[in-house]
This record gives sequence, structure tokens and C-alpha cells, in this order.
Amino acid sequence: MKTKLKAVVLLSGGLDSATVLAYAAKKGFECYTISFDYGQRHRIELKAANRVSRHFHAAHHFTVKIDLRKWGGSALTSSIKVPKGGLRPGIPTTYVPARNTIFLSFAVAWAETIGAKDIFIGVNSLDYSGYPDCRPQFIKAFAKCATLGTKASDEGWKFKIHAPLQHLTKADIIRLGTKLGVDYSITHSCYDPDSKGRACGKCDSCRLRRKGFEEVGIKDPTVYVD
Amino acid sequence: MKTKLKAVVLLSGGLDSATVLAYAAKKGFECYTISFDYGQRHRIELKAANRVSRHFHAAHHFTVKIDLRKWGGSALTSSIKVPKGGLRPGIPTTYVPARNTIFLSFAVAWAETIGAKDIFIGVNSLDYSGYPDCRPQFIKAFAKCATLGTKASDEGWKFKIHAPLQHLTKADIIRLGTKLGVDYSITHSCYDPDSKGRACGKCDSCRLRRKGFEEVGIKDPTVYVD
Repeated sequence: MKTKLKAVVLLSGGLDSATVLAYAAKKGFECYTISFDYGQRHRIELKAANRVSRHFHAAHHFTVKIDLRKWGGSALTSSIKVPKGGLRPGIPTTYVPARNTIFLSFAVAWAETIGAKDIFIGVNSLDYSGYPDCRPQFIKAFAKCATLGTKASDEGWKFKIHAPLQHLTKADIIRLGTKLGVDYSITHSCYDPDSKGRACGKCDSCRLRRKGFEEVGIKDPTVYVD
Repeated sequence: MKTKLKAVVLLSGGLDSATVLAYAAKKGFECYTISFDYGQRHRIELKAANRVSRHFHAAHHFTVKIDLRKWGGSALTSSIKVPKGGLRPGIPTTYVPARNTIFLSFAVAWAETIGAKDIFIGVNSLDYSGYPDCRPQFIKAFAKCATLGTKASDEGWKFKIHAPLQHLTKADIIRLGTKLGVDYSITHSCYDPDSKGRACGKCDSCRLRRKGFEEVGIKDPTVYVD
């Protein structure tokens, strides 16, 4: 039996990363999933990440605790209100400074330790919130950085950061995930859920999700407050 | 009165980063110092980082707690023994996977939040342990990554990662620090101190430090067990 290659998969518990995990598993990787308890107001997504990880039989799931509320600077990690008026041009207040750089750094550390050369992340630069750390040029620069800052450079191999959703619309992502067996009812997207964990329906993340399901013509299993 | 530019300075509590803080302060930056409680066996260095930060009147000092023992992979974060036989070619077991990538990511997040464009790090690639994340090509790649993954890219400015010790010998660093008023008695370098916090004298970090002081002809204020 051929030994599977290992991959570290960043898993937020949302629609995109669940699809990425399904994709990586389908590609034949043994998946090591990693989530971050970073002080986000929608901490409930971590439960979704756990469910999704189990659903796809990840080899191991880690939730890394880091406190980005220390300096705040984002509507997701401070008392700044989550905008509900719809997507606008520019970088929104829900942007968390350097979040993906931090998340990917931990992924690289874990990958290097377990001997994985592949990292999967669900960034997307089409139906997205305009976050700079979701763009292809950042992902490319980070891959180079990961290779140069680890044993990879001494051993003559390169880290590969896979971003299979980079150029897909939200509708395309949902179509792909549905084909790969993602159960979107166990995912969570909302930035500002109520005390019962129900999605607000109005934040950028809810809007992008709803629009995607509408376009595909599949019923969104999410319970929305509004 | 001219407003000082802000800079984030990575501070381990060791000889190098103390010198870098002195350097950044001398250059006129308002310094924000950051240390990491990452599960290192020489956690005592964090007390030194606090002392050094106060000594140079840093505007703010953060100790970020992250647990790199989760996956280990290093003599500093697991039960692997710290080597005491002297420096050898290759990457030693004290290398912590992707440590500087992680540390710099947090520094960038804090810098972006407070409006700092400058980050200082005490990496050195001359009298060093052969860690890949201390080399100039990594630092350069990381700077690019930091710019592309943050608001910097949208606002048209670049992060600068200063590594003023990059090409200095340990002796040169001690000379520079002494000129800048660093009190090396409040720093800590040893990877494997005893229960009283005394330096082992035999690990790579102790060896490099001792050699540096010997070359300069200044008495090393460290108390060594051996």
C-alpha cells in the first residue's frame, strides 16, 4: 500500500475551508487540520471546525490558542461593530491584521515537524471581503518565505501552499464542495452570531454565503436570524 | 517636537535582541517590544526580556503566549536533550520549526495595528547556530510577504525588517551593545539553565556568548554552572 503524503489544512469551520479539506482528502493527502482560537467573536466556528475535521477523518486536529485581542485592530477581535450594510470597496473593519500570515506560520511549523510539504488554505480573491492576505501574490510570497525559513531550503525541497479556491466564485465553491460530499449544514460562516449561535444574515460573510447558495440554486442549511 | 516613528522590536531577553533594542532606540524609534512564551525550556529568558525592555524605556512590552510544545520537534520545546558538545555543521536539534516566521508574523500584526512600518530582529548569520530562519534571504522574503499580506500593499508603503546584527560577529555585537549602554548582566542566553536560572555554559548559546566576551576582552557577567 502506498503511503499517503501528509498535508496541513487550515480549517476555520466555514464553507471555504471545509471545501478545501474535502478537496485535499480527495487528492489523496493524509490531512492534519489546524484551527485557531484567536479571540474571534464568532468562536463558535471552532466547533464547526471540529465537526468538519471529523467528517473527513483528518489524521489529527489541533486548535491553537493565540490571543489577537491583545492589540485588537479588527471588528472580529475588539469592540468595533461588525458592519452589516453590505460589501463596500476597500479593506473592511473585519480584516484582522496579518491573520493569515500568523495562521500559515503555525501551519508551516507543524508541517515541518511532521514531514509535510503541502499546506492547504481556503483563500479566495473573487467573492471575498478584500482582505490583503487572501490574494495570490501574498500566498506566493509566503510559500517562498516558508521554504527559506525552514529546513526545506537546506534539504532542497519547497513548501507548496495550495489555494484551490483562489479563483472560484462562491457559487463555484459550493458546487465543488457539494460534489466532494461536504455537508454544509455542519459549517459556520457568520462573523456575528447571536447567543444561540444563529447567523446574523447581514455581515459580509453571511451575505457572500447566501448569495453563493442562491446562485447555485441549493438551499442554504444555515439558520439566519434576519 | 517631532513625533517619533514607532517600531516593533522582537525581544528574547538574550544578548542579541537586547543590543538590537538599544540600536533601535538610539536610531530614534519609539520601541514596542514583543516576547514569546512559547513553551521554551529556558522560559526564564522572559524575565530578562522584561528587564531589558524597562531598561530601554520601551513604550509597551507584550509577552505573547503560544504553545509550540503542541508538536515539539525541537530540543527547546520537547524532551529532546539540548546538545552540549559544541557547534557542529548542519541544523542543530535546538532549531524550533518556523519560529522566526511565527514571531515575525505577530510582530507584523502588532505593527500594522499601531501604525509601525519598522520591525527589528536580532538575527545573525555569522556566530549563529545554523538556523535557516536567521539568514538574510529569509528576512528579505518575509518583508515582502508582510507587505503583500497587509494594508501596506493597498496603501502603497512597505514593511522594513531591520536585522542590524545580520553580518556581525558575536564580539562585534558585544562591542556595539556596550557602546549603546546595554547592561549584559540583565540578559539571559542559556538554552538549558538549572533550577536557579544559572547558565549551563555548554550549550551552543552559552558557547557563542562566552566566545564573544572572550574575544572582546570584557568580563561576561553571566554566572555559569560549568
